[in-house]
Amino acid sequence: MKTRQTLNSSDTNHTNSLKRPLARFKKQVERLEALKGISEHLSWDMQTYLPEKGIDPLAWKMKHLEIMQNKILRSNRLQDLLKELKKRVDELNPEDRVMVNLVAKAHERVTKVPKELLEEFAEASVRGYSAWELAKESNDFSKYKPHLEKLVSILRSEIEHRGYKDSPYNVLLDDYEPGLTTKQLDHIFSRLKEELIPIINRIKNSGHKPETAFLFKKYDHSEQIRISKIILETMGFDFHEGRLDESMHPFCSSFGPGDVRLTTFIYPNDIIHSLTSATHEGGHGLYDMGVDPKFYKTPLFDGASCAIHESQSRLYETIVGQGLPFWNHFFPILKEAFPEQLKDVSIEDFYRAINKVEPSPIRIEADEVTYQLHVLIRYEIEKDLIEGKLAVEDLPKVWNQKMQDYLGITPESDSKGVMQDVHWSEGSFGYFPSYALGNLYAAQFYNTAKKEILNLELEISKGNLIPLKNWLNEKVHKYGSLETPEEIIKRVTGEPLNPDYFINYVKEKYAKLYP
Amino acid sequence: MKTRQTLNSSDTNHTNSLKRPLARFKKQVERLEALKGISEHLSWDMQTYLPEKGIDPLAWKMKHLEIMQNKILRSNRLQDLLKELKKRVDELNPEDRVMVNLVAKAHERVTKVPKELLEEFAEASVRGYSAWELAKESNDFSKYKPHLEKLVSILRSEIEHRGYKDSPYNVLLDDYEPGLTTKQLDHIFSRLKEELIPIINRIKNSGHKPETAFLFKKYDHSEQIRISKIILETMGFDFHEGRLDESMHPFCSSFGPGDVRLTTFIYPNDIIHSLTSATHEGGHGLYDMGVDPKFYKTPLFDGASCAIHESQSRLYETIVGQGLPFWNHFFPILKEAFPEQLKDVSIEDFYRAINKVEPSPIRIEADEVTYQLHVLIRYEIEKDLIEGKLAVEDLPKVWNQKMQDYLGITPESDSKGVMQDVHWSEGSFGYFPSYALGNLYAAQFYNTAKKEILNLELEISKGNLIPLKNWLNEKVHKYGSLETPEEIIKRVTGEPLNPDYFINYVKEKYAKLYP
Repeated sequence: MKTRQTLNSSDTNHTNSLKRPLARFKKQVERLEALKGISEHLSWDMQTYLPEKGIDPLAWKMKHLEIMQNKILRSNRLQDLLKELKKRVDELNPEDRVMVNLVAKAHERVTKVPKELLEEFAEASVRGYSAWELAKESNDFSKYKPHLEKLVSILRSEIEHRGYKDSPYNVLLDDYEPGLTTKQLDHIFSRLKEELIPIINRIKNSGHKPETAFLFKKYDHSEQIRISKIILETMGFDFHEGRLDESMHPFCSSFGPGDVRLTTFIYPNDIIHSLTSATHEGGHGLYDMGVDPKFYKTPLFDGASCAIHESQSRLYETIVGQGLPFWNHFFPILKEAFPEQLKDVSIEDFYRAINKVEPSPIRIEADEVTYQLHVLIRYEIEKDLIEGKLAVEDLPKVWNQKMQDYLGITPESDSKGVMQDVHWSEGSFGYFPSYALGNLYAAQFYNTAKKEILNLELEISKGNLIPLKNWLNEKVHKYGSLETPEEIIKRVTGEPLNPDYFINYVKEKYAKLYP
Repeated sequence: MKTRQTLNSSDTNHTNSLKRPLARFKKQVERLEALKGISEHLSWDMQTYLPEKGIDPLAWKMKHLEIMQNKILRSNRLQDLLKELKKRVDELNPEDRVMVNLVAKAHERVTKVPKELLEEFAEASVRGYSAWELAKESNDFSKYKPHLEKLVSILRSEIEHRGYKDSPYNVLLDDYEPGLTTKQLDHIFSRLKEELIPIINRIKNSGHKPETAFLFKKYDHSEQIRISKIILETMGFDFHEGRLDESMHPFCSSFGPGDVRLTTFIYPNDIIHSLTSATHEGGHGLYDMGVDPKFYKTPLFDGASCAIHESQSRLYETIVGQGLPFWNHFFPILKEAFPEQLKDVSIEDFYRAINKVEPSPIRIEADEVTYQLHVLIRYEIEKDLIEGKLAVEDLPKVWNQKMQDYLGITPESDSKGVMQDVHWSEGSFGYFPSYALGNLYAAQFYNTAKKEILNLELEISKGNLIPLKNWLNEKVHKYGSLETPEEIIKRVTGEPLNPDYFINYVKEKYAKLYP
């Protein structure tokens, strides 16, 4: 009988010599992924169930997880393996090649940036989050300011170590949206500004003012949760493989196949926030549930990019979840749950109300037209902060000025202004543009979906959202991080990202709503 | 100006040479503690909020945390440091000395026992648990038997590797209750048997049969939670530093200063289970909240032993929480919450009902008198299993015989008999005695508390439980694992563990209840 060794030696030496480093590489990657997954788990806990005074022990554990990840990333063992594999990257299959490139990128960050700085960032980000919570609650920017200053300063220093082209902000952009630059973004945003501001002005002057007061009556907390769960289940979110909890800022976390967790926030006097949170986070959740489980324990078990992820959430939140077919099915259910609040409200009234276009201070409550300008404001501010053109202490002033310039309004408080978003508190800069891009990708995907799925909107209007989910599973979700955003959008829609789909969608929809 | 280095070199070389290894040792210990804490966090999640299908990714993360801990424990670095520090353990301050001894014990286990055996145990324990669930559900001991046999055989082999004195069971006892031996336990249990069996027989023949039906009416879920929280708050459990969630088996987890989490389980037709869970887990929680925070990030941030921990939970659950002073305050509150269910029930009726003594098959439902005999049965059986005097296949027969001998009853099925507890299914042998010892310590502590706290029971009857908490904080909790159980009980009560306090407490209380 041939021994295993004899069998192996009958392979070409060529393949053989790559097999061993690849196996050793994957072992390191698995450990990295386990640590990353554990961090995500603790981060979920931080945002959902952590007791008020429990932040210190959690921050300490997070710090250790970060240290352990960086230790692996920084190890000579991984460095040598990466060197060996990168040299012969063309001999790898596509999955292994992407894995090597993703890990190489992470490796580069921790080897270029001093250990102390990364650890400082991890801790500052946890502390920043809890300072933000308190500062927002008491509408006191001064409590938030030192934490934000610290985070910006750490990031600027990190970028210096990593090196950059044109703008330091490009380094952060690339972390979220590989390859994206300020040059491209400036172009996209100026196109959006050019097209959207006239639409907003036309709507402002149209004289149409849909009635929305019924959306802001008293809506029972647990009924809002119940309806959210019905919507999620209808979308195809499987509660045997996931959860819906409550947190100040709704989010979605994937802990692996069989465990995808969404959160929502319930206002007692607002039904719209919980409905849009459900469809938005549900869109993220379906993506996470749809990634091929064979990618689990590797960095491919993720979305293609933040913007592609956001395209799934915005597709469900706005194009589907604020569309007439969707409410044709769900409005009777909502009305049954809240007969008093929605008495005498027709589906047309409801549809007009939830699609009211009006500049307002809060991004996550913004309509889909003004939304893009909310993102633009954040983009301009964080770019200036990172480029050192703006000081943190001037943030409230600059924020309010830009709100005035682009949307014609001034927030009533910093809590509802510059402190409304969680992102910066955790040191998350460079992410916001993904929101705007997400809307563009969403419109482009949906345009193709309508062509390829038989009677898509008829099915939605009957409450059958499964064909859409299956199509997205097949076209987008299952690929995980295997393809780049560019590859995906080209494969699915036949062309690169094109803002026209979004602009046309908006023009068409709002021409009917505001004739 | 003197540099720091010059200052240091003015110390004796002697101290200096110990400082460095101690600092390096503490760094390793901190990493171990972080990993242990993270595992506890995930384990809490597993028991509270994990989606039905989320077990695989969680088990994978837990496995990696275990591997990482064992890697540190098994490392040459730690071994060398321990060797150096143990050689000169007398020069260490008490805290460092205890820390070295605790880590040395954990190190010894993973180095003496072959890695394969430890891994085999970890797997057998997971498989044992799920086999137990199925076997219990279908009342089929034969499904459970091979798993239990495997666990017993692995443990016996582990003990051979670790070495033992007198009985192999002493090794397991020592894991939970440092220093405790079968010789001491045999003595304590024979004393308990001698005293308790006559009391139980007297009660049986007394003719008194308290009415308990009102405890098992329909009790609203969220009202049960609300009352549990009121009780916990009154006990001094601070919800800014902790939580109460729901899980199948109530438990308490400490994640560090500022984050202590309790769970409960709510039966729709039973008010007693949630009340006793609250006081029991609350007792554990106060202990965990009361440990000196300076011990955090070291193995001293823990209780003195399982039995001492259990003394705190049983003190609040039985002596306080099933006492008349406690209900003098809480009964009106309970009655207001459940006016229908408790209509026409007097505080005397209620007190008699919750203290009904009656041999029953299930340990966790047992009254405080028969409870000790439930533990005795388990102790005798697990000792015989580990000593090789009893075969797993004979377990059901032996179990039922002992139930008959000590409690005069025969369980209606193995599910409600030998398979009722989870412990053995996970390979947890040697823990059960802690339950009985906990009751003895509790009575002895309480006896001293009554002498040292002015009008203790009068204060409790007015709803002021804080003096008791402060006393326990000061006398027991703050020490963490610094002192041994023996040191604590002697320091606090002036004498070693003495079962008389428990026996007298039972005699006195039940002489009044069953005159």
